[in-house]
Amino acid sequence: MISDRVLMGPGPSNLYPEVVSAFTRPLLGHLDPDFLEVLDETCDRLRALYRTANSLTLPVSGTGSAGMEAAFVNLVGPGDVVVVGVNGLFGERMCEVAGRLGAEIVRVDAPWGEPLDAAALLAAHPSPSVIALVHAETSTGVRNDVEDVARGKGDALLLVDAVTSLGGIPFEADRWGVDLAYSGTQKCLGVPPGLSPMTVAARARASFKDRPSSWYFDLGLIARYVEGEGGRTYHHTAPVSMIFALHAGLGVVLEEGLEGAWDRHRECGQALQGGLEKLGFELVAPPEHRLPQLTTVWVPDDLGGMSEAEVRAALLYRYGIEIGAGVGPLAGRVWRIGCMGHTARLRNVELLLGALGEVLGR
Amino acid sequence: MISDRVLMGPGPSNLYPEVVSAFTRPLLGHLDPDFLEVLDETCDRLRALYRTANSLTLPVSGTGSAGMEAAFVNLVGPGDVVVVGVNGLFGERMCEVAGRLGAEIVRVDAPWGEPLDAAALLAAHPSPSVIALVHAETSTGVRNDVEDVARGKGDALLLVDAVTSLGGIPFEADRWGVDLAYSGTQKCLGVPPGLSPMTVAARARASFKDRPSSWYFDLGLIARYVEGEGGRTYHHTAPVSMIFALHAGLGVVLEEGLEGAWDRHRECGQALQGGLEKLGFELVAPPEHRLPQLTTVWVPDDLGGMSEAEVRAALLYRYGIEIGAGVGPLAGRVWRIGCMGHTARLRNVELLLGALGEVLGR
Repeated sequence: MISDRVLMGPGPSNLYPEVVSAFTRPLLGHLDPDFLEVLDETCDRLRALYRTANSLTLPVSGTGSAGMEAAFVNLVGPGDVVVVGVNGLFGERMCEVAGRLGAEIVRVDAPWGEPLDAAALLAAHPSPSVIALVHAETSTGVRNDVEDVARGKGDALLLVDAVTSLGGIPFEADRWGVDLAYSGTQKCLGVPPGLSPMTVAARARASFKDRPSSWYFDLGLIARYVEGEGGRTYHHTAPVSMIFALHAGLGVVLEEGLEGAWDRHRECGQALQGGLEKLGFELVAPPEHRLPQLTTVWVPDDLGGMSEAEVRAALLYRYGIEIGAGVGPLAGRVWRIGCMGHTARLRNVELLLGALGEVLGR
Repeated sequence: MISDRVLMGPGPSNLYPEVVSAFTRPLLGHLDPDFLEVLDETCDRLRALYRTANSLTLPVSGTGSAGMEAAFVNLVGPGDVVVVGVNGLFGERMCEVAGRLGAEIVRVDAPWGEPLDAAALLAAHPSPSVIALVHAETSTGVRNDVEDVARGKGDALLLVDAVTSLGGIPFEADRWGVDLAYSGTQKCLGVPPGLSPMTVAARARASFKDRPSSWYFDLGLIARYVEGEGGRTYHHTAPVSMIFALHAGLGVVLEEGLEGAWDRHRECGQALQGGLEKLGFELVAPPEHRLPQLTTVWVPDDLGGMSEAEVRAALLYRYGIEIGAGVGPLAGRVWRIGCMGHTARLRNVELLLGALGEVLGR
């Protein structure tokens, strides 16, 4: 029997029906004019979601982590100073990715579960090449204030992980002044994992390394295919079906209206967080920096004799609901409950609250 | 109107109906036990296709070119000597990828359209770290003899690009002694582009770089998720839907029988090549090293006043058939006609021959 889940973990989320339909579309070649039209429209739709006019806006051919790697490998080389805000797993990962490229990392830590201090990030080094931070920390449910960092960045390039934020909460690439951002398809876009939507401002583009250590993620070469000024130069074969899926998912978001999608995520998040508190749960993230699309709760001491893993298993096997475990220093101590993409419906909030109350006898 | 092509270019090929069905399967989380079962089975099926018992056999989360990059970045670092056989675009690409990693490249060239000389590859350097070659050159339609190189490789690691060969012609990873091979999903497997099936022998694995410059393609870390000895360690979010699709495509091949799939590709290739010669075309690759799944023909001088691009456009717009143009030194001089995956049916061969004859008035 094929299992059918309500995906309320930290991603993937459930797929919009339109996305599933898009997968049944007959395959096209990556140089077929009809495919290139879909690709161009996908990039246009990404511009609308990122609120940007950046020409270089594209789906990178890999998951969100591929987007992170593509971002750093094109901007950072040996000895470059990179200030990284770290208050969760994905800030940690940025240090690892940039460190492997030989960058000099200046870490600015905040405790997991708390937001970064923008002033501390800006004061960490007098002249960094790049300041990097995660907008929505998937490991903690915390939102970091990108806008505050952008305002004071000076000559540094601002690199933002928008994996869990894009489409779920406001992101204003151009208005804020973000130089490069990448996202994932499997969070607030209702598309399966496999692509990393990215946008690159002219300033960041002008700083691209000449011949980055990665050929696959060389955005200068990829641009010649994606932008297609004066013809399309083949780089690698585009993941056509995934792009059909992304095209469709973005279509759903834009048909609803981007603000409408933000509202829906907010409404679901508030209902979920209110409901969890009513059930006696304590939320991890402080109210001002709490993501609506990804909620982290402390695992209660009293689980009626069950382990936290058994509670998750009960949700999975009795109700077909996936929620996420904690990671890093929060492993075993928190649950992560996502409500993103097509999952972000009040009916799923009610279902989760009911099932969780039932399992825990509350 | 949604366009529906007969994909007879150098890839992607048409999808098996089972693959399209698999895409409609409800999404699962990347740590869901039911997904991990599909992933494990996918890796088992890849072992059957590669004819290997290698534990580390997996779909890399990117296209075939991502497989190439993952292969080199884990095996090659600054100053390592890499002998690369170059008789087409993908051998060239290997030099570029390995060169960016700081390897000392020893090129062994053969003209595009001719096979590599195994003896020359083996004599090129007394003690290379890696000998790399492409099994089926997608840019020329030529098969290189992997087995001959494997036999004489000595202490070098043998790295093989099997993008266009896996599932289409015999590939025997263990019997030949291939240390690492990668492929693509969009050629002989009837699956869309987006994953790179890879297999790594213990010898290659023991030579993995400790902290390769790429975090995303760090196979040592990825193995902890894919192999799951003692639990699954999250690395990046697996591209779940694409893995469903690959799982289904491999299922089709194994249900037919791998030898059956080889036979079908051979039969179609022979019918196509015979038919093209009957139409007066001259084939590029020499008979002994001619791929059945990808046929390259010289563009005739007399196209009745059409350009070669116009002929391809006529096939695309009048008949919905895609064939490929030449690349590199063969640009404008050859056509590349694929017959792979679900495209590899005699009915498509007949269709192409009929349509081409019609367009050219032969």
